[in-house]
Amino acid sequence: MTIETLKWVDNSLILLDQTLLPNKVEYKAYHDVENIAKAIENLVVRGAPAIGLTAAYGIAISAYKAKKQSPENFLKNISRASNRLSQTRPTAVNLFWAIDKMQTIINNQNNHSNHAIYEALLSEAHALYEQDRSICRRMGKLGAELLPKESRIITHCNAGALATADYGTALGMVYSAKNTGKSITVFASETRPLLQGARLTSWELMNNGIDVTVICDNMIASVLRNENITCCIVGADRIAANGDIANKIGTYGLAILSKEHEVPFYVVAPVSTLDLGNKTGEDIPIEHRHDDEVRYIANNLITGKNVRVHNPAFDVTPHQLVSAIISEKGIAKPPFPDTLRSWKTDEHLI
Amino acid sequence: MTIETLKWVDNSLILLDQTLLPNKVEYKAYHDVENIAKAIENLVVRGAPAIGLTAAYGIAISAYKAKKQSPENFLKNISRASNRLSQTRPTAVNLFWAIDKMQTIINNQNNHSNHAIYEALLSEAHALYEQDRSICRRMGKLGAELLPKESRIITHCNAGALATADYGTALGMVYSAKNTGKSITVFASETRPLLQGARLTSWELMNNGIDVTVICDNMIASVLRNENITCCIVGADRIAANGDIANKIGTYGLAILSKEHEVPFYVVAPVSTLDLGNKTGEDIPIEHRHDDEVRYIANNLITGKNVRVHNPAFDVTPHQLVSAIISEKGIAKPPFPDTLRSWKTDEHLI
Repeated sequence: MTIETLKWVDNSLILLDQTLLPNKVEYKAYHDVENIAKAIENLVVRGAPAIGLTAAYGIAISAYKAKKQSPENFLKNISRASNRLSQTRPTAVNLFWAIDKMQTIINNQNNHSNHAIYEALLSEAHALYEQDRSICRRMGKLGAELLPKESRIITHCNAGALATADYGTALGMVYSAKNTGKSITVFASETRPLLQGARLTSWELMNNGIDVTVICDNMIASVLRNENITCCIVGADRIAANGDIANKIGTYGLAILSKEHEVPFYVVAPVSTLDLGNKTGEDIPIEHRHDDEVRYIANNLITGKNVRVHNPAFDVTPHQLVSAIISEKGIAKPPFPDTLRSWKTDEHLI
Repeated sequence: MTIETLKWVDNSLILLDQTLLPNKVEYKAYHDVENIAKAIENLVVRGAPAIGLTAAYGIAISAYKAKKQSPENFLKNISRASNRLSQTRPTAVNLFWAIDKMQTIINNQNNHSNHAIYEALLSEAHALYEQDRSICRRMGKLGAELLPKESRIITHCNAGALATADYGTALGMVYSAKNTGKSITVFASETRPLLQGARLTSWELMNNGIDVTVICDNMIASVLRNENITCCIVGADRIAANGDIANKIGTYGLAILSKEHEVPFYVVAPVSTLDLGNKTGEDIPIEHRHDDEVRYIANNLITGKNVRVHNPAFDVTPHQLVSAIISEKGIAKPPFPDTLRSWKTDEHLI
């Protein structure tokens, strides 16, 4: 696994520009919060775990840049950075989780020097990054046990290396199973409007020697009926206390189609994706993005210029459609609430 | 309704080039069979009824061009034209139905002059065209009765004026209901890979003053859950004796999602779409089209160049998911076989 989605080099954050994939592999360096916030908004970096880590490094950068200011202004700058980053995208709770983690560091560093606080923040960002790597491996290992020796899998959007600091959530299961010698075939639904399946998932799976076929989103039912699918696996952007799942638009449909074909539907996400403050999926805020994401593909207008469109970036899959939720803590099967609560209570004990 | 999808002018067939819509409205004249066959293959004209009519006119053109040859060569040319046209697209049975109709004319014209046979063929093509117009109106009127006063409808692909000689099959219901004063809102799923919903359905509905919103195919489940949808309506490319429906890829998924949300799922198609020779949908040949239709959108590569893709143009919706089939003969409700058989037996009596 050689894909680095984000990395810290010389006091700046380096992001693989995912808007250019698969045609161009280009890394860009980010030195200030505003550009990092825009990179999250414009999906240069995306995927719930990856945007959490990006926000953490963004806060570290704000501290680095304000180090020479008065302690008061230093903290104000960090607070402004946290606010800006928290306004980038509303659905993936990992973003707010990471910002909270950084805030806790600041709260514990009262009266320390600016430099010491900066060092503590950077060290926390690094810790979250390393933690994400080990969480991915742990989820991959646990999840792979659910996959039969010959697995034919549908996945939606991208919940792989490009969404995390390591080999992904949903795709981590795939890579882990492949590493233990299982035979894996993946169908990647293209994931309109922004084509993360067609552009990102197929690219990273091919780069890692996994057999992958891209399908249009509307081919999923036909593939489930005709291609002996073993299971469907997706990541998540937020999981409510009852096990309802917010994830990329199309996930809810995929879950219904899986149930209709009696195919297990698995969700893989770190505990940081749980939000027990949301009792059900109804409480999860759903991001609606710009209409032109639907109207244009690669700068080509595909509809009439002024036609009305609908562009919710996420949908909610009711827990009744979920066969299992896999986190670094284990495998939860329905009913979910008690297990999810226990995971969150012991969040720091892996 | 001012859209003319195909028309006969000065011994040539004029087609609205649907590959250029909605950005360009351009009519092209066709004077020979090979170019008409390519126009069908390349989707300059598409939609089951429209390609049937196009093939009928194509045969008339082959007769026109061979009029001065020996009677033997004249008939050979027509036969070659029928063969070529029958190889353009395998799924929509209206194509073969129209070619059969033309063959019957030839069979009944033995020993007539080339000119007389040509005139009879052209007159049959015109009759099929006029018949399609009245069938559309009849289906529209019958189907509209199923729509409540305030209807919020999902439709997939394009089964409208652009697929017929008149105002369409599925969309005929919509236009007819609108004409009787009902309030109609349509969600058009974009229909990857070739975007007939985004490009064609939204264009013709807007041109006819119908409220329309384009959605990505993967938003259907979310729209069914959140937008108070009254029913889903589609056309068909072939209907088996048991009521299984072959239609544009994605129809099967839409039907499952409709059922899950307890929303009626209607299929509108002329009796020429019935193929009682196919006992079930399993017998219907499904066209697979070129991989690059998935890999490229408007000449832009959206995947890796060599990524494997899957491109079935149609899927089969089992009759259990169909609430009603509307033809010019009436409204069939489950169980379908007896009604469908009676329709086909009395095909010529409207």
